[in-house]
Amino acid sequence: MDVYPMSLMWSVKIVGLGVVALSLSLELLGWVFGRCRRRRTLNKVLFFPSKVACVEHLLSQNSACSCFCPLPHGVETSFSCLLRHILSASSSLDLCVFSFSNMDLSRAVLLLHSKGVTVRVLSDKHYSAITGSQIGALRKAGVCVRCDAGSVHMHHKFAVVDGRQLITGSLNWTLTAVQSNMENIIITEEAELVQPFIKEFNQIWALNDPARFYKS
Amino acid sequence: MDVYPMSLMWSVKIVGLGVVALSLSLELLGWVFGRCRRRRTLNKVLFFPSKVACVEHLLSQNSACSCFCPLPHGVETSFSCLLRHILSASSSLDLCVFSFSNMDLSRAVLLLHSKGVTVRVLSDKHYSAITGSQIGALRKAGVCVRCDAGSVHMHHKFAVVDGRQLITGSLNWTLTAVQSNMENIIITEEAELVQPFIKEFNQIWALNDPARFYKS
Repeated sequence: MDVYPMSLMWSVKIVGLGVVALSLSLELLGWVFGRCRRRRTLNKVLFFPSKVACVEHLLSQNSACSCFCPLPHGVETSFSCLLRHILSASSSLDLCVFSFSNMDLSRAVLLLHSKGVTVRVLSDKHYSAITGSQIGALRKAGVCVRCDAGSVHMHHKFAVVDGRQLITGSLNWTLTAVQSNMENIIITEEAELVQPFIKEFNQIWALNDPARFYKS
Repeated sequence: MDVYPMSLMWSVKIVGLGVVALSLSLELLGWVFGRCRRRRTLNKVLFFPSKVACVEHLLSQNSACSCFCPLPHGVETSFSCLLRHILSASSSLDLCVFSFSNMDLSRAVLLLHSKGVTVRVLSDKHYSAITGSQIGALRKAGVCVRCDAGSVHMHHKFAVVDGRQLITGSLNWTLTAVQSNMENIIITEEAELVQPFIKEFNQIWALNDPARFYKS
């Protein structure tokens, strides 16, 4: 007669063990899938020419200020998306761009600089001197600027935001590129893509350190 | 006395159950991690200027043929890596490039065309007519070519290999870009990056269908 209660006791133990094993498995699965989900990093593509719309609300220090310009308001465009990503910088912006004459992009860089974001700008030595280039204005405002003197053209057009977000493509930072050309921009946080660009930036930055030229 | 053998039997059953549960868990973990590993897609960055080296072994139809040119042989460079990725096309190459005058890249496209790979080339209407442009030679060889007439500049510089691999960056398909400029190329199979470029290519391709102009 003792056998049945003992067997019943064991059955209860097995069911209990099963429940514990199931809950542990679910926990483990949740952890593994969580890791997989965390690996889904930002990957975005923007195409240009961009629709034209007012971006004053993004660039104005006073966000409550209304703009009465005749451009469409409250419209999300490729350009406003690009601006948002640049303006999302909270600690650093490393910018490496062949041609930089776009006033709105220049205002975005100056705004970040005024907020205390560490901004470094690399540009092409020839294109930084052409009419309309914003490189002089940035330098005058105290932004750290270096111009590459070691290649025929420093033809990159990329930015690294906060050392983790890469913005790169065919688009020079000019009004024609934004409003009239067919262009592309990739915005990514894939470390395999971002890290080589950070290394490249630091190499070109070091290569064009004015101190090197004074020494030699 | 009967209780102990019964208890022992249950213990054996529990150990057995544990072994089965463990092996199933390992199987499940392997499957989940396998999925995670499969998600690791190609992401590569190339920087230019490229070292100069002979690429004849990549472009020659006769791979046994030796080249006696004075350039370094057997050296892997950014350019040879780019060529390898382009030449890996087995079914299609969609090329959308602002300026195309590089002879080696032209040979690569012609080689793919001669092997039966479906090649479509989009270029800028102005830059396809400049001295040294390879667009005329490609057209003459029977490659499908369309030139964009709808924007100030069709400034893209990207290629899609077999509808799954995107090659894009700042690099125009010229000798100066490859050998003298600071440039970048991203090679990726991230679907979130590749798919928008395929859509963009097809849109520009359709927009510049000569049949549209004959109709209007």
